[in-house]
Amino acid sequence: MRNINKKKVDAAILIIGNEILSGRTQDLNVSFLSDWLNKRCGISVEEVRVIPDVELKIVKNILDLKRRFNYVFTTGGIGPTHDDITAKSLSRAFKTKYEYHKEAYSILENYYGRARFNDGRKKMAKMPRGSSLIYNPVSAAPGFIIKNVFVMAGVPQIFEAMVQEISLDIESIDPIISKTIKIFKKESEISERLWKYANRYQDISIGSYPFNYSGVFGVEIVLSHTDRVLLNKVFNEILSDFNEPNTN
Amino acid sequence: MRNINKKKVDAAILIIGNEILSGRTQDLNVSFLSDWLNKRCGISVEEVRVIPDVELKIVKNILDLKRRFNYVFTTGGIGPTHDDITAKSLSRAFKTKYEYHKEAYSILENYYGRARFNDGRKKMAKMPRGSSLIYNPVSAAPGFIIKNVFVMAGVPQIFEAMVQEISLDIESIDPIISKTIKIFKKESEISERLWKYANRYQDISIGSYPFNYSGVFGVEIVLSHTDRVLLNKVFNEILSDFNEPNTN
Repeated sequence: MRNINKKKVDAAILIIGNEILSGRTQDLNVSFLSDWLNKRCGISVEEVRVIPDVELKIVKNILDLKRRFNYVFTTGGIGPTHDDITAKSLSRAFKTKYEYHKEAYSILENYYGRARFNDGRKKMAKMPRGSSLIYNPVSAAPGFIIKNVFVMAGVPQIFEAMVQEISLDIESIDPIISKTIKIFKKESEISERLWKYANRYQDISIGSYPFNYSGVFGVEIVLSHTDRVLLNKVFNEILSDFNEPNTN
Repeated sequence: MRNINKKKVDAAILIIGNEILSGRTQDLNVSFLSDWLNKRCGISVEEVRVIPDVELKIVKNILDLKRRFNYVFTTGGIGPTHDDITAKSLSRAFKTKYEYHKEAYSILENYYGRARFNDGRKKMAKMPRGSSLIYNPVSAAPGFIIKNVFVMAGVPQIFEAMVQEISLDIESIDPIISKTIKIFKKESEISERLWKYANRYQDISIGSYPFNYSGVFGVEIVLSHTDRVLLNKVFNEILSDFNEPNTN
């Protein structure tokens, strides 16, 4: 997709966690964040990576993604245990000191109480020098922002709460609007006609997604663009061509 | 994780599809394939990437991943529509001709019948010269294997059926075994003690995953290795240290 009026803003998501790679845990954060960035901020996610909790791999991927995308969002690896090395790795990537963040330290000390503020908990207050906090209304331990990288928790409940906290930090541009046409034909029956529209309107993202509702086959055609007028024009054109009443 | 007895075999997964990046569709294939590769073949997935349906990005990522990993598995983009460009992009990556695969062509011709075998459907028989097929018992259109890259459908039902078809093509090594200890304490309370074991047994993968079952907090500690004897030794050691009866 290309927006000819405004500068396109893009993002990448870096998921840090062996539990996703091993198949033990189903990632839920990508769909949540991508949808939120699309609809709320007009930012399109252009790449997602899942990597293990290995410092060198984190550093390498951060250096690559932060250079290529406007924003990078990481999830995972900011807890209290030995395998939580995201903050330390980010310090290394940005060649900045890994140290206690004063406000994060006092948030955590208040939350746990001085007597139970052990080393694992203190570790969650350490981050790259110069970071600003992303607050965590669920379990106190904050995420942080350094340059164009947003570092957040992996647990979906905490991740989603953190995403709400960053809403004001991202400059809003026109949101991407999507419209869907349902066609009750097999994808391979309609592919040629659809191709014609994809060629004619190269500026619009036209996706084709087959479905099977208990034996009823069909395709959802999803049109996306920031310009509602253009979108409606193409939507109506395709709709009347395929002559299908079922849309949403 | 490092296996000192046998050569480690690793893999990457490349998900090709705007629908995953936009948040419209929740990926389910990574957890299925990673789990299957781990348990059935002893192969660990070391990286996952999600990228859009853009030829240059597919080529670039394939060239990078096929070089760095023993196996690469792709999902998505092998259907009949204009945005299905995986096979063509693979041909370009491998600098080989993009042409009809004879057997794939006749499978599809039989499936649809000659009269309904239109151009979109024919396209699904085109792949890089030299590919061997991955059969598709659900909807006929096959995936394919070229060198160390396995190209499969994105629809989970079809993807999972294709994975079963490739089972014999991958050399089996010792499967990775996992054992889990449930501890009903907060992660930040046990992180220091756990760290000790992670340092002592660096050969074993020790993951720590907090849970919250309706307000009951705890941590699952997951130990993984191919050596069952070593795994049981460390499992029992940690178990008796934490003195928790609830395990699985």
